[in-house]
Amino acid sequence: MTRVAIVGCGVVGSSWALVFARAGLQVTVWDAIPAAVEQTLAFVKSGAKALDQQGLGNGESVDAITARLTGCATLEDALDGVDYVQESAPERVEIKRELYRKLDSLAAPHVVLASSTSGLPASSFTEELANRARCLVVHPINPPHLIPLVELVPAPWTRPEIVDEAAALMEKIGQSPIRLSREINGFVVNRLQSALLGEAFRLVEDGLCSAADVDKAVADGLGLRWFFMGPFETIDLNAASGVAEYCRNLGPMYYGLAKEQADPREWGPALVKEVESQRRTVTTAGALPARRAWRDRCLAAFVAAKRRVMSAEGT
Amino acid sequence: MTRVAIVGCGVVGSSWALVFARAGLQVTVWDAIPAAVEQTLAFVKSGAKALDQQGLGNGESVDAITARLTGCATLEDALDGVDYVQESAPERVEIKRELYRKLDSLAAPHVVLASSTSGLPASSFTEELANRARCLVVHPINPPHLIPLVELVPAPWTRPEIVDEAAALMEKIGQSPIRLSREINGFVVNRLQSALLGEAFRLVEDGLCSAADVDKAVADGLGLRWFFMGPFETIDLNAASGVAEYCRNLGPMYYGLAKEQADPREWGPALVKEVESQRRTVTTAGALPARRAWRDRCLAAFVAAKRRVMSAEGT
Repeated sequence: MTRVAIVGCGVVGSSWALVFARAGLQVTVWDAIPAAVEQTLAFVKSGAKALDQQGLGNGESVDAITARLTGCATLEDALDGVDYVQESAPERVEIKRELYRKLDSLAAPHVVLASSTSGLPASSFTEELANRARCLVVHPINPPHLIPLVELVPAPWTRPEIVDEAAALMEKIGQSPIRLSREINGFVVNRLQSALLGEAFRLVEDGLCSAADVDKAVADGLGLRWFFMGPFETIDLNAASGVAEYCRNLGPMYYGLAKEQADPREWGPALVKEVESQRRTVTTAGALPARRAWRDRCLAAFVAAKRRVMSAEGT
Repeated sequence: MTRVAIVGCGVVGSSWALVFARAGLQVTVWDAIPAAVEQTLAFVKSGAKALDQQGLGNGESVDAITARLTGCATLEDALDGVDYVQESAPERVEIKRELYRKLDSLAAPHVVLASSTSGLPASSFTEELANRARCLVVHPINPPHLIPLVELVPAPWTRPEIVDEAAALMEKIGQSPIRLSREINGFVVNRLQSALLGEAFRLVEDGLCSAADVDKAVADGLGLRWFFMGPFETIDLNAASGVAEYCRNLGPMYYGLAKEQADPREWGPALVKEVESQRRTVTTAGALPARRAWRDRCLAAFVAAKRRVMSAEGT
């Protein structure tokens, strides 16, 4: 049975601790700031309780889940006997470099060192390590205890077996891993989001429609399919014989649009001010915290609904 | 009470007939092919029944809904006494031009002429009409009885009051209208889809990841939020003080990605063949119809879940 160390106890590390513990794994928890460890232990308790209430529990008691966690006073203790480290330290390359020097020297040679970083390639902080071939990025979408997608991104020197091992672990604990063949800015998720955001800002900057209308186009339109099908499956099912027919019919139209969308734009001060001002008429600054709570409730409810439907469908 | 004519009885027109009838409006139905009218009447009956079974009914009997429909043998009959025409004829400009000549001469002057076209601007088939100021595009996402988003796109000569009227009608019948300020290729929805698809194909062409992994990135990641929040609300809630702070922190990163994504690409034969071949390992050609039925069941189930959650949230 895999044993896991959580290194770095912020929002992301805390959610990871819940993900691993609810999946039945023993989890050690460490942070450079001892109080952060306590926060993670408290988060797993409240998070497991919330999942139960949201219809997302695994049938176990909260105590059974939290009993798998061990807060550690030292990094050495946290790494003792583990097979996999999920690191979620601050997103600064010098912090990661220093931390990975310690991790690489303290962790047994077989231990996978996985970083939650969203922006730094593993090559930027593992190059000089003796055992750098066991390092990779395992990037979650926050919060991983609700959103299953994780991006596995190897450095040029990551051994393929390490990626296999991380992928198998993610599948086993109920996450949804995807594999990138190499490092690339933004990985896959932020590149896709960038493409959509780029056009969203372009439409508002050009006065075509309001930011609220762009949001409706997604939340009341495109997003209803993207919730359970990706863009390729969507178009594949939209032509009688599949995606090749779709591309034959509509490829030229999309190429025309792509050429119109090929002007990368900075989100300049006037545009940002305009979007900010439009957003504040929908949700005032004071109402943002309540709206975030709304978002979190909705996300949990929809993840639960998706699990029910997909389970009934057997997919 | 608004009375509506459905002109053109394909898949889109049939779904529109259900949308208007379930909202309590009287609906006349006409198509150049009489048998198509019968198909629409049959579709509304089966569709209303299916909505009931999917938890998406409005509490009325199927008979009460279908009683509001009147199949018409002539266009004159269909237009008699109506206030609004939803035209869903084939997507060929010469067909629309000829049809709008008839519609403009037969419909009373106050009647709104709305086209379901996804690709033709209203200016391309209404320019020479005596009363062209009452014409616009009211473009649904298929099927409108499940997906509420509609795009309202005026021609340069469309009177603003006509757009107001169409928007008010769409709100009244429970659709979610957005307003474009002017005609643009792809409107908003296909431009957003184009941006995402462009990056999806780019990632596969460049060997970064598989088509299935791009689909996972959306269906198990980004799409979980886009199901109920658009891209602007998503980023607005992702920084403590809102979207301006988000843009300050991440704008430069996204601008960097946008520059990398600014090479519009044709979906060439080799790329399309590769995607087709990857898709056929996930869903064989023979399994496509069953997968479409799966998609339709899932879509209905998720729309029902969204309605329940949003209604409980009061949003």
